[in-house]
Amino acid sequence: MNILVINCGSSSIKFKLFSMPENTLVASGLIEKIGGTDATINYSKGTSIFRETRKVSDHRQGLEIIAKLLTDPERGVVKNLSEIKGIGHRVVHGGEEFTGSMLIDEKVKNKIKEFIPLAPLHNPPNMEGIIASEKYFPESVQVACFDTAFHTTISPVAYLYAIPYRFYQEYRIRRYGFHGTSHRYVARRFAQLMGRHKYDVNLITCHLGNGCSITAVKNGRSIDTSMGFTPLEGLVMGTRSGDIDPGIILYFVENLGIKPSEVNKILNKESGLAGISGVSNDFRSIVESASKGNKMAELAIEIFCYRVKKYIGAYLAVLSRTDGIVFTAGIGENQPVVREKSLQGLEELGIIIDREKNKNCTATEQEISSPESKIKVFVIPTNEELAIASDTYEFAKKQGRI
Amino acid sequence: MNILVINCGSSSIKFKLFSMPENTLVASGLIEKIGGTDATINYSKGTSIFRETRKVSDHRQGLEIIAKLLTDPERGVVKNLSEIKGIGHRVVHGGEEFTGSMLIDEKVKNKIKEFIPLAPLHNPPNMEGIIASEKYFPESVQVACFDTAFHTTISPVAYLYAIPYRFYQEYRIRRYGFHGTSHRYVARRFAQLMGRHKYDVNLITCHLGNGCSITAVKNGRSIDTSMGFTPLEGLVMGTRSGDIDPGIILYFVENLGIKPSEVNKILNKESGLAGISGVSNDFRSIVESASKGNKMAELAIEIFCYRVKKYIGAYLAVLSRTDGIVFTAGIGENQPVVREKSLQGLEELGIIIDREKNKNCTATEQEISSPESKIKVFVIPTNEELAIASDTYEFAKKQGRI
Repeated sequence: MNILVINCGSSSIKFKLFSMPENTLVASGLIEKIGGTDATINYSKGTSIFRETRKVSDHRQGLEIIAKLLTDPERGVVKNLSEIKGIGHRVVHGGEEFTGSMLIDEKVKNKIKEFIPLAPLHNPPNMEGIIASEKYFPESVQVACFDTAFHTTISPVAYLYAIPYRFYQEYRIRRYGFHGTSHRYVARRFAQLMGRHKYDVNLITCHLGNGCSITAVKNGRSIDTSMGFTPLEGLVMGTRSGDIDPGIILYFVENLGIKPSEVNKILNKESGLAGISGVSNDFRSIVESASKGNKMAELAIEIFCYRVKKYIGAYLAVLSRTDGIVFTAGIGENQPVVREKSLQGLEELGIIIDREKNKNCTATEQEISSPESKIKVFVIPTNEELAIASDTYEFAKKQGRI
Repeated sequence: MNILVINCGSSSIKFKLFSMPENTLVASGLIEKIGGTDATINYSKGTSIFRETRKVSDHRQGLEIIAKLLTDPERGVVKNLSEIKGIGHRVVHGGEEFTGSMLIDEKVKNKIKEFIPLAPLHNPPNMEGIIASEKYFPESVQVACFDTAFHTTISPVAYLYAIPYRFYQEYRIRRYGFHGTSHRYVARRFAQLMGRHKYDVNLITCHLGNGCSITAVKNGRSIDTSMGFTPLEGLVMGTRSGDIDPGIILYFVENLGIKPSEVNKILNKESGLAGISGVSNDFRSIVESASKGNKMAELAIEIFCYRVKKYIGAYLAVLSRTDGIVFTAGIGENQPVVREKSLQGLEELGIIIDREKNKNCTATEQEISSPESKIKVFVIPTNEELAIASDTYEFAKKQGRI
């Protein structure tokens, strides 16, 4: 069964077509710079690649292009769009409402709109993708997979901030957490690798990509995560600060006269690895720069890893007993230096990595802990799209679209 | 040798007179509501207590009153002020400059003034106290003890925030940490109790009072602490939020239209235990309320302890090997429930408390861990004033004031 996964960003659409339940990637693509006359289209099927630069006005038109590509006699993968049985949409914010993926109906769409104030940059393009998709793929089952869903098992003790309670009651200000589909995917995969039931593992999942978050998973369920009300909290990221003294923001505004909108930009776009290193938000460039002796690049790496280590410690405490630690996403999968530094000196807490195994592991699923390590450490490449495809496939099956 | 310790708040002066090196408290007092016509003076010497309500215009006048009380033929403790050999001043902010207590001279005073933007509520009254003290106690050695000094050993990896580096270069925005005198005092005392050299212990010191902070002490030196650029960061406190998603502050201002000055007030004065519980900022009232079935009071306690636990975990990771955990200050010394909940489920990490010992320990120096606990847990009542008196005594000795 063909399942299409769609991820709409503010000016982009990522898409992947899977054949399920074989989990095979059939075709994939990316449209960028939507809204401009020089939008780029990248599409690949097997080894053949198609590229085009053209005007793409909006997400609706983007979806139209995708529908045409997928049915193109030469480049396409299906004869008719009705062969695509389900469309899985990545939706960033599902509020407290959606504890799992949902078959999209009017009520679900209204809720996604209702949550726009909570994810003003993400939920609107996600919605546009859904509406366009309903138009171009009218016979497909439409499913929404929420970044927040996996974290809805977090208890009030961990999700409430110590601010006046009315802000939760009136505005639902609380920890939501993000990257849930990725944390869930690697947590389930870890359980499989350990030969355990998915609800029979305690682990810490480190999603370190351009955005970074870390989750404490107890009995297979998220019980705490580093991103909070917004994706700004927690670890150091490419351009986001992660945790900072809230007093600094007030100091920026009240003492340095920086406008709140400017503070927003500084903390979201100019901070993190880019802000410390002055080099780049790209970890590879920073590592290269550090290897050439750039002290600020070196410091950025040290701070990044130190903060990962602190969260690992915090979550070891929260979990009581921890079976494993998983590294995933761009940095987590490809930067042995991050895994080594983040776990250095944690032997007393039961974590011993095999430095050689770690050094040689990039972008492959592998255990990198020593046999004597009480807590197993794994690199597990994430695959959010496949997770979304799986969820969508399940709904399509239930709906009898087989 | 008589040593007077002075702690000037915005509208208060706390003072204690010690006989050194015997560490004996001779007299103490507190003037509150300075600036008003109904300022209250509390003074005690041995078992005799003196109370008065009167006008006290400013800190200068407050110091004059203290000088008169101490030399009062009936209530006083000295015949002549010259018998008070040293005055130790608590100064909140010593910037990056002061790594220990300092004999006060013009340069030191200028620096304390220079750091006013970093501690706008604290350094000005601290300065006023120093100036008044120089006037009324001209023959005494004047010493400044900084709340930040103990934390100047923290490395850039732990003190830098992941914001553009220029904010450190231009404005010295970094983690400073506070409560340093208290953390140092209990760390030194812990080393004594273990029969170890002061630089031969790794421990976590939890100062839980109205303000709360927690410090990782490695080889006797602070290597990380939860308060940051301001005392707002870190643990949940009486009325302070501690850590929150920086995105929430931006949401307050940009989406809810709350003015930055109001946000400041909310986070510093209306949050923390008071904000969650809706009951009080006083832990005793909250415990009482919770025992009567108030669910929000219960939740406030749970959140408070959960956040302590997370920091303990983070610092266990940072320290690699930890000898002990120390609880101190109002809540830390007097609330067994906090110690129990904060350390619950940390057995795998080497922490096992003796529940009976813990339950029966209030405000006394005692080990509360089980013999089999790898990491020792102690309650050690703090005594910042005695620490300041000690430092001042050392300077007075060096200056030949014996």
